[in-house]
Amino acid sequence: MLEKLKVEVCNANLELVKRGVVIYTWGNVSGISADRKYMVIKPSGIKYDNLKPEHMVVVDIKTGVIVDGNLKPSSDTKTHLELYRKYLEIKAIVHTHSTNAVAFAQAGRNIPALGTTHADYFYGDIPCTRELTEKEVTNNYEENTGKVIIETLSINNIQPLEIPGIVVKNHGPFAWGENPANAVYNAVVLEKVSEMALKTLALNPYSKMNHYILEKHYLRKHGKDAYYGQDCSV
Amino acid sequence: MLEKLKVEVCNANLELVKRGVVIYTWGNVSGISADRKYMVIKPSGIKYDNLKPEHMVVVDIKTGVIVDGNLKPSSDTKTHLELYRKYLEIKAIVHTHSTNAVAFAQAGRNIPALGTTHADYFYGDIPCTRELTEKEVTNNYEENTGKVIIETLSINNIQPLEIPGIVVKNHGPFAWGENPANAVYNAVVLEKVSEMALKTLALNPYSKMNHYILEKHYLRKHGKDAYYGQDCSV
Amino acid sequence: MLEKLKVEVCNANLELVKRGVVIYTWGNVSGISADRKYMVIKPSGIKYDNLKPEHMVVVDIKTGVIVDGNLKPSSDTKTHLELYRKYLEIKAIVHTHSTNAVAFAQAGRNIPALGTTHADYFYGDIPCTRELTEKEVTNNYEENTGKVIIETLSINNIQPLEIPGIVVKNHGPFAWGENPANAVYNAVVLEKVSEMALKTLALNPYSKMNHYILEKHYLRKHGKDAYYGQDCSV
Amino acid sequence: MLEKLKVEVCNANLELVKRGVVIYTWGNVSGISADRKYMVIKPSGIKYDNLKPEHMVVVDIKTGVIVDGNLKPSSDTKTHLELYRKYLEIKAIVHTHSTNAVAFAQAGRNIPALGTTHADYFYGDIPCTRELTEKEVTNNYEENTGKVIIETLSINNIQPLEIPGIVVKNHGPFAWGENPANAVYNAVVLEKVSEMALKTLALNPYSKMNHYILEKHYLRKHGKDAYYGQDCSV
Repeated sequence: MLEKLKVEVCNANLELVKRGVVIYTWGNVSGISADRKYMVIKPSGIKYDNLKPEHMVVVDIKTGVIVDGNLKPSSDTKTHLELYRKYLEIKAIVHTHSTNAVAFAQAGRNIPALGTTHADYFYGDIPCTRELTEKEVTNNYEENTGKVIIETLSINNIQPLEIPGIVVKNHGPFAWGENPANAVYNAVVLEKVSEMALKTLALNPYSKMNHYILEKHYLRKHGKDAYYGQDCSV
Repeated sequence: MLEKLKVEVCNANLELVKRGVVIYTWGNVSGISADRKYMVIKPSGIKYDNLKPEHMVVVDIKTGVIVDGNLKPSSDTKTHLELYRKYLEIKAIVHTHSTNAVAFAQAGRNIPALGTTHADYFYGDIPCTRELTEKEVTNNYEENTGKVIIETLSINNIQPLEIPGIVVKNHGPFAWGENPANAVYNAVVLEKVSEMALKTLALNPYSKMNHYILEKHYLRKHGKDAYYGQDCSV
Repeated sequence: MLEKLKVEVCNANLELVKRGVVIYTWGNVSGISADRKYMVIKPSGIKYDNLKPEHMVVVDIKTGVIVDGNLKPSSDTKTHLELYRKYLEIKAIVHTHSTNAVAFAQAGRNIPALGTTHADYFYGDIPCTRELTEKEVTNNYEENTGKVIIETLSINNIQPLEIPGIVVKNHGPFAWGENPANAVYNAVVLEKVSEMALKTLALNPYSKMNHYILEKHYLRKHGKDAYYGQDCSV
Repeated sequence: MLEKLKVEVCNANLELVKRGVVIYTWGNVSGISADRKYMVIKPSGIKYDNLKPEHMVVVDIKTGVIVDGNLKPSSDTKTHLELYRKYLEIKAIVHTHSTNAVAFAQAGRNIPALGTTHADYFYGDIPCTRELTEKEVTNNYEENTGKVIIETLSINNIQPLEIPGIVVKNHGPFAWGENPANAVYNAVVLEKVSEMALKTLALNPYSKMNHYILEKHYLRKHGKDAYYGQDCSV
């Protein structure tokens, strides 16, 4: 079932390695079916070298039950499920341990919107979640990781497709998008703008960008008045 | 029309990827015709993997009207046009979001001339522009980006071929040159000297270079008394 | 003798180069036979380009005498022997001069457990040894390097397979594992978490991770209640 | 003439690019003939892609006159000549603009001996020269660059093969060795230990290494009591 989505999810996982944001098994991509009943996700702890579409695992969104596939799904499965259940606009999710984004996660700092590279894809600071409590970690950890992401977006009034990524405190980045390839794209941008921000703060700890530049660049590429790329006026 | 220039501009765009200063669609190169009537520029938002000379867009310098090509030109087209109209010595322009140069742009700092690598290509500090005002961003943003580059070069009495690059505050680097390949070369050097400067300032925030070393190295490679390379004495 | 282990040790040495943690001859891997009588180790100062299983040197664990092979073993041989003699659970050892781990070794700092990337493989801070005394360096240096590793693990009550690596002050990282490939894996992770920690501390010198996150992630992958990967429940 | 040395020097130049310490034309390697009458050096400003042994230029050591080759020699030729004339033990010289070594040169700081990676090849801090005076730069600049290297080694009582490299203030590294390949090796190590030192100082500005560790590691690989590698006891 969902053979086309399995191919997309598998390719998106492989793209993570090609783009240098994942080594070994340190990442996972999922995608959701058009009817939002099923999630296709990478199996847990499988080497990318051998990853094939038929290894992908299909999970029922509502029940979390595996409905297709011989392998165990990613250990982060319940985090993905939480986000799909909450945000109907998200169609794919990526998790990585990309170095510079992890640095912000470990430092407990938002990735500040300091330039147009950031503004082209993320409509504001990329938030860092609060630390999970001991109880949240001990019981239903992966589910609670999803919940703290939702809590953080909610507190900050963030529409998930406007800021399609976050860093989880002491852990690392999650990103999402309109399809698996787009979610990976956002994960790569998140890593790149993290590297830029880290170097910018080294040069000037008080760096900032005015809000009107953020708006201009984001809206140049997104929404009804976008004029970047080839499809905007079509 | 301008088939040879289209090939040069296309190749120069691909070279940006090979040299590691551009990922995805984050850059663009243009070149101007010998009679300075037309600019050939990369189309907007097209993947480099598939970029071919026939995708290049020809734009009338005076009117900004597309005169050849089926795609929309780079969203930064008006910035390029401003610079070609002002500086008759510029024959090609490059824009990238290369990481270390962006760090200086985001930090709002000039890239200081700290060593001979810099001095071999840039005859002084590479300036960072002032921030654009809200009005400049809201109306005619790309045109105003060109204008603030011109303003910055003017205030600093810079001949554009003597310091063939700049960083635009909160945005990133623009570079230029005598042809598309040369402009890309300058964009790569700008990124490399940014990386060197960032690391130098980490080791010693008070680093500087005496002006006579700058002059020696710049004039060793440029102008009538140059003696670097094979063609100087011919 | 031990032809299979020679292949494993040779491949593990080559993997160090592929993973970017070793250049030139700056690293070595060894493995121990199932009966723990013999160690197979890389020869000293041999280029990786030409490394073949038949170049591996077999050393008697108890006596340190070469029992097979035409080349001299790694100059760090006695360090490996010390560790094998002390820790019966270690089956392979790796030494590298990977850049970020060396930075912690040279700075004399532990690599702090700041995030889940670290916690997935290392059950606590990766310690830095004390400096060796002049006497320890002048006489039996390589043996004493092994002894100071053991002393450091002992003082910190570390089970070597729970924190499968260390940095030796002013020198660099040693890592170990259940087989040569696993020890290399740990050496690569050690380098990666060093890079993450270095960048994290640049963003926030007071970064830390609560102990319950460390425990959750480590025990998610290790021990009887592990649920990461495909083999845990088998 | 000197066809074998031309091949060695050409290959050594190409190795600089492969090892990532040179882009474009930013480096040069020379070697001296066994009778120390002639130097073979890379031509000035030639791309590495097309570099062939027949492009190498032969220069008379005593007179500085070109005795073989159709191209102009490297613009740094006179620096190389100064060093060959002074130090009979140097048989090859390399100059690069490798990023981390340049950072120390631009910061005006020695590259401190902080660990065994450094000690294995450099028997002490790698010095940074003083700044050249205006007069030294204006007249006979390249010759004076050689002289300030000699002055710096002399003031610090350095035997050039014991510390086979230096950084020239505001410029970059020079390294040397027993043959072109060995000089390139030293240039690559110099860059790598610069990167390690820069990161070490970020973690702990007061990092240092005791002299007895420096001695142990250097003498483990060099001199009559060396025991690293395969040839020492032969």
